[in-house]
Amino acid sequence: MEVKVLRDILSANDGIARRNQNLLDERGILTINIMSSPGAGKTSLILQTISRLKQKAGIGVIEGDVASSIDANKVREQGVAAVQVNTAGGCHLDANMIENALNSLPLKDIDLLLIENVGNLICPAEFALGEHKKVMLISLPEGDDKPYKYPLMFAEADVVLINKIDLLPYLEFNIPAFHKAVLGLNPTAKVLPVSCKTGKGLEDWFSWLLDRIGEMKRGGKSHILRQGG
Amino acid sequence: MEVKVLRDILSANDGIARRNQNLLDERGILTINIMSSPGAGKTSLILQTISRLKQKAGIGVIEGDVASSIDANKVREQGVAAVQVNTAGGCHLDANMIENALNSLPLKDIDLLLIENVGNLICPAEFALGEHKKVMLISLPEGDDKPYKYPLMFAEADVVLINKIDLLPYLEFNIPAFHKAVLGLNPTAKVLPVSCKTGKGLEDWFSWLLDRIGEMKRGGKSHILRQGG
Repeated sequence: MEVKVLRDILSANDGIARRNQNLLDERGILTINIMSSPGAGKTSLILQTISRLKQKAGIGVIEGDVASSIDANKVREQGVAAVQVNTAGGCHLDANMIENALNSLPLKDIDLLLIENVGNLICPAEFALGEHKKVMLISLPEGDDKPYKYPLMFAEADVVLINKIDLLPYLEFNIPAFHKAVLGLNPTAKVLPVSCKTGKGLEDWFSWLLDRIGEMKRGGKSHILRQGG
Repeated sequence: MEVKVLRDILSANDGIARRNQNLLDERGILTINIMSSPGAGKTSLILQTISRLKQKAGIGVIEGDVASSIDANKVREQGVAAVQVNTAGGCHLDANMIENALNSLPLKDIDLLLIENVGNLICPAEFALGEHKKVMLISLPEGDDKPYKYPLMFAEADVVLINKIDLLPYLEFNIPAFHKAVLGLNPTAKVLPVSCKTGKGLEDWFSWLLDRIGEMKRGGKSHILRQGG
């Protein structure tokens, strides 16, 4: 019975996710689902992205958390529209929560929508939100064995950011071995080492994002999903 | 319907958890459910605990992961009985998985059973396994705002270990503010700063554990649950 219920839930979610994506396509809003463990740096990545790109693109943010509005407040301080979604115990965002959040955002002003999922390496990978791309962060202190332990999210991500590389001198984390493990699960994943604290490596992330926004403006979703790897 | 199904699942789980705890009480096996984010240091804590206490107590380990048997292999290399449970996508251990794992462990040789839950700050807190105590780790790189974002696990934990304090010089983490936030959710929680890498602070953890093992031997579960805070 549990399996049947889960299948029904996922199927209903996929229907709403498609509806969300259709709306985002019509509006030309590139939408990125950002996932990671708690504290790996999702909010820092969003704040860095806002700081670097807000002159080039209209940005909106949906912040997902079990509780609190700490992250949405940080984003709003940067002058960007943000909606906080609290899942009240739920371990991931779902398409229905995103549909509701979209109703509260000024969509006509947004070119790039960043969705910060709940801090969790497992369930967020299972629930489509209507996003065009999935991005995950892994931070060095978490260890280089994570692709073996949490394979689905690594397999699903279009981009894997290795965050907190400023801490490399103090940790044992084998970046080449990690990179190889990710490519074993996901041969087309883009893997970028970055520090959201110092800014190191982030130019590659900004370029990737600007290329995707450009594609969205030119050719819409089908173009992005075909060439945006 | 989803809510009703979840309630049924939790209620069935609680029944099996009680059965597990009865068995563990009869056998006099102190059982600890260890929870944290991915990569916060659960396995390192278990390895340090084995190294320090294996001459004083018979130790058994149940390792929970979505996939892989990396952690159980590390534990077995220390000469300790370990069972790996793979949840195949599930984001937490449940009492039924523990009941099955108990059948594979040499219970007569075990005084202390350490259960490493799946790396996740959310769902593991909702599912009783039959444990006597819940212990959680938070690692400094995750940030000091986690009690506000993931309140349930902090509210449920008997002990909160602040791990990776060796990284304190390189991070912004306000230990007194964090400690205060934890006590706001859970006034009787024991909060211990430690480094599972350098060993700093771990003597307090070993003492706490030895005290609980002693209580278990003397008075069983009811004594532990009354005085073991």
